[in-house]
Amino acid sequence: MRENAKDPERHAQRMARKKKVMEERMANAQKEQGVLVVNTGNGKGKSSSGFGMVTRALGHGMKVGIVQFIKGKMQTGEERFFRDVPNVDYHVMGEGYTWDTQDREKDVEAAENAWKEVARMLKDDSYGLILLDELNIALRYEYLDLDQVLDDLQNRPEMQHVVITGRNAPKELIELADTVTDMSIVKHAFKDLGVKAQKGVEL
Amino acid sequence: MRENAKDPERHAQRMARKKKVMEERMANAQKEQGVLVVNTGNGKGKSSSGFGMVTRALGHGMKVGIVQFIKGKMQTGEERFFRDVPNVDYHVMGEGYTWDTQDREKDVEAAENAWKEVARMLKDDSYGLILLDELNIALRYEYLDLDQVLDDLQNRPEMQHVVITGRNAPKELIELADTVTDMSIVKHAFKDLGVKAQKGVEL
Repeated sequence: MRENAKDPERHAQRMARKKKVMEERMANAQKEQGVLVVNTGNGKGKSSSGFGMVTRALGHGMKVGIVQFIKGKMQTGEERFFRDVPNVDYHVMGEGYTWDTQDREKDVEAAENAWKEVARMLKDDSYGLILLDELNIALRYEYLDLDQVLDDLQNRPEMQHVVITGRNAPKELIELADTVTDMSIVKHAFKDLGVKAQKGVEL
Repeated sequence: MRENAKDPERHAQRMARKKKVMEERMANAQKEQGVLVVNTGNGKGKSSSGFGMVTRALGHGMKVGIVQFIKGKMQTGEERFFRDVPNVDYHVMGEGYTWDTQDREKDVEAAENAWKEVARMLKDDSYGLILLDELNIALRYEYLDLDQVLDDLQNRPEMQHVVITGRNAPKELIELADTVTDMSIVKHAFKDLGVKAQKGVEL
């Protein structure tokens, strides 16, 4: 494909083909519904993609709920930013990174309290989008009951979007989801190149 | 791993191990530098992850430049949102989706004009982070000279972060980058399930 990129005629043909595909796809895609999005995998971008979707939703005038699981001790750039933004309801689970607490009981309690906030939002159709950042970690460690989580997600308002992030998404969640992306690492400055976690990038 | 998730002692051991790994990694990662991040692949989340990183950077008080390539005609949620945010310098390449124009000359001109904005930012260390959304598409179609792009990126201020998104990132760019994520599709509501592109999710 690439070798002919500069030929104007082939370019026009290719673009016309693309346009047709997009038009057909848009004609076929007529269902209006809330979408359940899952970002998983070992690469960078799962959470930041969720925060980017928050900006999209806010740009369309939606009210947004954000509940961050696990990461609680360090205040991240996105928390500092979104705490001051109107129409955002921001919660962070009580405890720090789990590898700092080493106390399962406290982690379970913190996760359950955070889920109470989520369950409330999942019953309230004034929230257009809810970001459940790193929820998959809490599920992985079985801090929360997976069936309860799936039930609450499934019974949410019809037009409500939910974005769930974190590696190792359980297969039952992937089945329930509408859109799933696997974000895999190709290279990572922090792990591979000895570059310190940088503000605005990792934090 | 999962079957023992609920055993408190094993949990404490595992968390202690994780803590050690993180501490070692943080001790080894001492370089301070601007990071070049590339989000590529056929899945959802490449652009939204870039916009999430913008919120992180803003949360840390940085000035941010955003230049969107290709997508110019429809105003997206993120554009509506960020146009009003202080400390954000937002530019959208002149033309609509390329499959709407079918005129290579105009696309090249629009891309070159957009790159002039980028080149200016890449010489100005007051920008802490620059998002070049869908730049890979412009490179793929050879609207821009790849060597010039790589040169400008390489010669940017030492502490400046750059995030580049779009499928089919050229291998030379992947080589230059510090952190690369491949975002691959597992399933997609819009393509697979006939769900209309939803505000706050796709738009």
